Amino acid sequence: MSPKITTELLKQLRQVMRSPKYVQEPVQAYIVPSGDAHQSEYVSPCDCRRAFISGFDGSAGTAIITEQHAAMWTDGRYFLQAAHQMDNNWTLMKLGLKDTPTQEDWLVSVLPEGSKVGVDPFLIPADQWKRMSKALRSAGHDLVPVKENLIDTIWMDRPQRPCKPLIMLDLSYTGVSWRDKIVALRSKMGERKVPWFVVTALDEVAWLFNLRGSDVEYNPVFFAYAVVGMNTIRLFIDGDRMMDPAVREHLQLDSTLEPEFKIQVMPYGSILSELQAVGASLSPKEKVWISDKASYALTEAIPKAYRYLTPYTPICIAKAVKNASETEGMRRAHIKDAVALCELFNWLEKEVPKGTVTEIIAADKAEEFRSQQKDFVELSFATISSTGPNGAIIHYKPVPETNRTLSVNEIYLLDSGAQYKDGTTDVTRTMHFGTPSAYEKECFTYVLKGHIAVSAAIFPNGTKGHLLDSFARSALWDCGLDYLHGTGHGVGSFLNVHEGPCGISYKTFADEPLEAGMIVSDEPGYYEDGCFGIRIENVVLVIPAETKYNFKNRGSLTFEPLTLVPIQTKMIDVNLLTQKECDWVNNYHQKCREVIGAELERQGRHEALQWLIRETEPLIRVQ
Amino acid sequence: MSPKITTELLKQLRQVMRSPKYVQEPVQAYIVPSGDAHQSEYVSPCDCRRAFISGFDGSAGTAIITEQHAAMWTDGRYFLQAAHQMDNNWTLMKLGLKDTPTQEDWLVSVLPEGSKVGVDPFLIPADQWKRMSKALRSAGHDLVPVKENLIDTIWMDRPQRPCKPLIMLDLSYTGVSWRDKIVALRSKMGERKVPWFVVTALDEVAWLFNLRGSDVEYNPVFFAYAVVGMNTIRLFIDGDRMMDPAVREHLQLDSTLEPEFKIQVMPYGSILSELQAVGASLSPKEKVWISDKASYALTEAIPKAYRYLTPYTPICIAKAVKNASETEGMRRAHIKDAVALCELFNWLEKEVPKGTVTEIIAADKAEEFRSQQKDFVELSFATISSTGPNGAIIHYKPVPETNRTLSVNEIYLLDSGAQYKDGTTDVTRTMHFGTPSAYEKECFTYVLKGHIAVSAAIFPNGTKGHLLDSFARSALWDCGLDYLHGTGHGVGSFLNVHEGPCGISYKTFADEPLEAGMIVSDEPGYYEDGCFGIRIENVVLVIPAETKYNFKNRGSLTFEPLTLVPIQTKMIDVNLLTQKECDWVNNYHQKCREVIGAELERQGRHEALQWLIRETEPLIRVQ
Repeated sequence: MSPKITTELLKQLRQVMRSPKYVQEPVQAYIVPSGDAHQSEYVSPCDCRRAFISGFDGSAGTAIITEQHAAMWTDGRYFLQAAHQMDNNWTLMKLGLKDTPTQEDWLVSVLPEGSKVGVDPFLIPADQWKRMSKALRSAGHDLVPVKENLIDTIWMDRPQRPCKPLIMLDLSYTGVSWRDKIVALRSKMGERKVPWFVVTALDEVAWLFNLRGSDVEYNPVFFAYAVVGMNTIRLFIDGDRMMDPAVREHLQLDSTLEPEFKIQVMPYGSILSELQAVGASLSPKEKVWISDKASYALTEAIPKAYRYLTPYTPICIAKAVKNASETEGMRRAHIKDAVALCELFNWLEKEVPKGTVTEIIAADKAEEFRSQQKDFVELSFATISSTGPNGAIIHYKPVPETNRTLSVNEIYLLDSGAQYKDGTTDVTRTMHFGTPSAYEKECFTYVLKGHIAVSAAIFPNGTKGHLLDSFARSALWDCGLDYLHGTGHGVGSFLNVHEGPCGISYKTFADEPLEAGMIVSDEPGYYEDGCFGIRIENVVLVIPAETKYNFKNRGSLTFEPLTLVPIQTKMIDVNLLTQKECDWVNNYHQKCREVIGAELERQGRHEALQWLIRETEPLIRVQ
Repeated sequence: MSPKITTELLKQLRQVMRSPKYVQEPVQAYIVPSGDAHQSEYVSPCDCRRAFISGFDGSAGTAIITEQHAAMWTDGRYFLQAAHQMDNNWTLMKLGLKDTPTQEDWLVSVLPEGSKVGVDPFLIPADQWKRMSKALRSAGHDLVPVKENLIDTIWMDRPQRPCKPLIMLDLSYTGVSWRDKIVALRSKMGERKVPWFVVTALDEVAWLFNLRGSDVEYNPVFFAYAVVGMNTIRLFIDGDRMMDPAVREHLQLDSTLEPEFKIQVMPYGSILSELQAVGASLSPKEKVWISDKASYALTEAIPKAYRYLTPYTPICIAKAVKNASETEGMRRAHIKDAVALCELFNWLEKEVPKGTVTEIIAADKAEEFRSQQKDFVELSFATISSTGPNGAIIHYKPVPETNRTLSVNEIYLLDSGAQYKDGTTDVTRTMHFGTPSAYEKECFTYVLKGHIAVSAAIFPNGTKGHLLDSFARSALWDCGLDYLHGTGHGVGSFLNVHEGPCGISYKTFADEPLEAGMIVSDEPGYYEDGCFGIRIENVVLVIPAETKYNFKNRGSLTFEPLTLVPIQTKMIDVNLLTQKECDWVNNYHQKCREVIGAELERQGRHEALQWLIRETEPLIRVQ
């Protein structure tokens, strides 16, 4: 990896920062956020502005350029990568370290008095604008919106915004029609007496209309906004995809519908002016519901007194609770995904000893097996295929410069997943193709105990996921080990592999309570820098539990694993498990054998079936 | 309990709410907060304004009086008590129930357009003012500070503000002189470049100057403020207590000191004008450090641009980490406290079967035994002495109307503690003086398992206490049981029995990380409404732990119980314990026997010693 040379680009950017053609007054600093206008985690190539100006292309990072300096804030996952990808023009600001200044503090320390700090108002979330603007103002500076994106003005070969065809999902996948989703949304709006709702997150638009796209890699979404009133629906979307007769049929664009279900299709770019028009038309006490993480530009379009801001939108919350059709789809997707992984691990077991399988080859092979499964669409994130020391890099993605060959002497960690038309998967297994050391087995077993502690946890209805995070750590903590990431995230249904509003992490407090039908990951780990990484991840469904006293009718919840891929027993030190934990593993493997075995049989994958049977032999614990 | 008749009082209050003698413009609503000008949890009789106007005297509750209505917000601990103590003029607003409006929402719903809502600016914390003022303003009303407290104008027999003698603590108790505490505080101020610090919480003033008082029941504090500059110390305190030669000597008021340690004593009432003078004297970039929970009045005295607000002050954080002298004092206090409780339980065991011991008699007897111990000062909170169904009322305090007789047929729960000159105690034991039912034992054993899970937990340095809360619930959750309070609170060292900034609760997120030397309670429980209550509470000290891998030198922590009172083995279903839990109980009882046994011996309390020996017989678990 050689760094991108940015001297000339930075010079050009500093010119436009002063140019009256683009800015009303010169800006002394310009912020380049990580996300797109929808605050997406993954962005389309046309939105990779931070990577363009700096060379650093990790999934998280904010660049700030002043007349003298260029600085990049990113977190521990990316310190190494950012240092490699950026040239000497850049200063790396390591988030999470004690001495790293915040963006605000740094700006205040380097800016001349009375400076203007510019940012694209579509790219900065409103809550972040508020915080930053306040800090700058109290130091005598101003945060100013710059209408034209200054990176775009110097980015000559910037890709076009993609506008790919849409996928329609029928009732058998979604369980609920878009009309009924609109009805439910309006009912929530009615409860709060808020007559307007703005849909800004791409996965929320996709979910609401039962449509999917491929404008962003890994996330089956498309560029669009929506504004839903009590009697109107406006969809802001570009391109001729609305000319597709199947789409028109799906959205009933040409039918005689009750007017409140008639969708007005408008250009993507007209959202701002339309929202301003809505804002201007409001009578007193009427409000517009919008996420507090929506862009500053859209939030500002609504006069302050008329904004109804919440951290989670009703769509975000409804989307998280999967209905029966979605749950069944997720089950099917996980069965197919397990078939692909049984094939892969069987293949790796044979090939690794030959010394010809690299991390990239293994990742490609995983994709190949997945792509053979019905309704496969694409991967759900960049495959983390890592062996030995690379496994300790939590968000590792193999590239030719780091690509390592799998061997019988190192632990192999594979964190991968796919998008199927019926569901999204995300699974991590840690394998050894030779003989693991006692220490490796010890660590693996503690991680497994943590995984089981969460998966088998019983808790009252209304419990927030962050309260379960310590269960995953307790066995590691007892020996003085820990891992520095959360334990789980929400998973979409043929949608983003990371979604809110629930999760299992010590870092969040504002998560919504878990309820039956929500789907999260359970993925504790342990990482020994320079040596190995261990993570055991299943996607699990929140289900009602049966308890002796049932919390005075408040109701009991627990988890059911949707992922059904064997956990390598070779890595387990059985004597560190309690009988209950041992039973959990054996029951889990029994289920893998039954459910995945039947599907392997059905697909005629006999060798993988034999592998599955070998790998699901019951553990025996010596008392 | 008959309700207080408040018709006449409310009429008088509504008159002064309109009287130009007291308010610049009439206020249409008046808020009566629960706390005093220092936002204390427990208040002095002269500050019981909410109890005076409503009759409701629980420890938490906010009254709001409008021209037409009178409403009281309180939480689940006090629904019953508030309903009993208030007459029909009052509407009870049950906090935590879904349909209960917030104070802001209720005000907006009942007030005529453009109303003024008055409040004493000394009694409302600044952060609450901000939230409330914003909500009212957005609905067209105004929150206004009313200088003269309107309750005081109609409270004819209002007690005087107490001004009791001070207690000086020498180095053997405090470990650090007040001079060194000032030096440490100024060093923190220097780090943040904040040249002024305002001490507003009563326990922070007491801790800083190594003084104690008795102006507020249960809390050994005195009414005072302090303002510390880099070169000045101002103590705002009333009465002739500063004439006491011992106090003058302790504070070195008459010595020739370096000027930066010279304490200027000023009248309590002059804090506002002095702080305004400090505020007016600041040069640009100079700030004043003050808690964001300080009163609106004091916060407003500092111009906005000069305020440095933090949720926890450096004194709050320093106070929480006990030094060796304080820890040793806490150990001594807990030994004496255990002696008193062994005496009490031995006495109860003999007396309860006679049917003559009521909850009040038992509470008085506990106080009597405690008062026999060296350096006893007072109780640390109102004793919760509760039998049978009263045990399910979490903050129960026996009064003649509810006073129940202890019997061999009911569970008895005693939550009590004391202030000794060397430390503060808080202990809960749940006892049965006859034969407990299988269900009672089952519930008790789950609570015990939770207590042990927290007490024996090992966790990395830097862990926040709220991450341990679920450990206390896991065994209860497995059977569908739970309790609706937090698991632990910080405990002061001969100071408030509840103190920040640490604790163990699912409700907080902004707690400071636990570190060695902090002291918290560990008190899970289970409550069966109308039947019984169970709680097992020890005060525990955070200590370094030894772990195999020590978190890559981050360091390991665990807890050491300071409370050494037997946990009734009769209530334990041994078969529900793991071997590890059984060992924990036996080791704990072994320590009780050794440490408290020796002290009982020394004090010649032979009968109580025999009781202790009987109660600490090892449990035997049938495999």
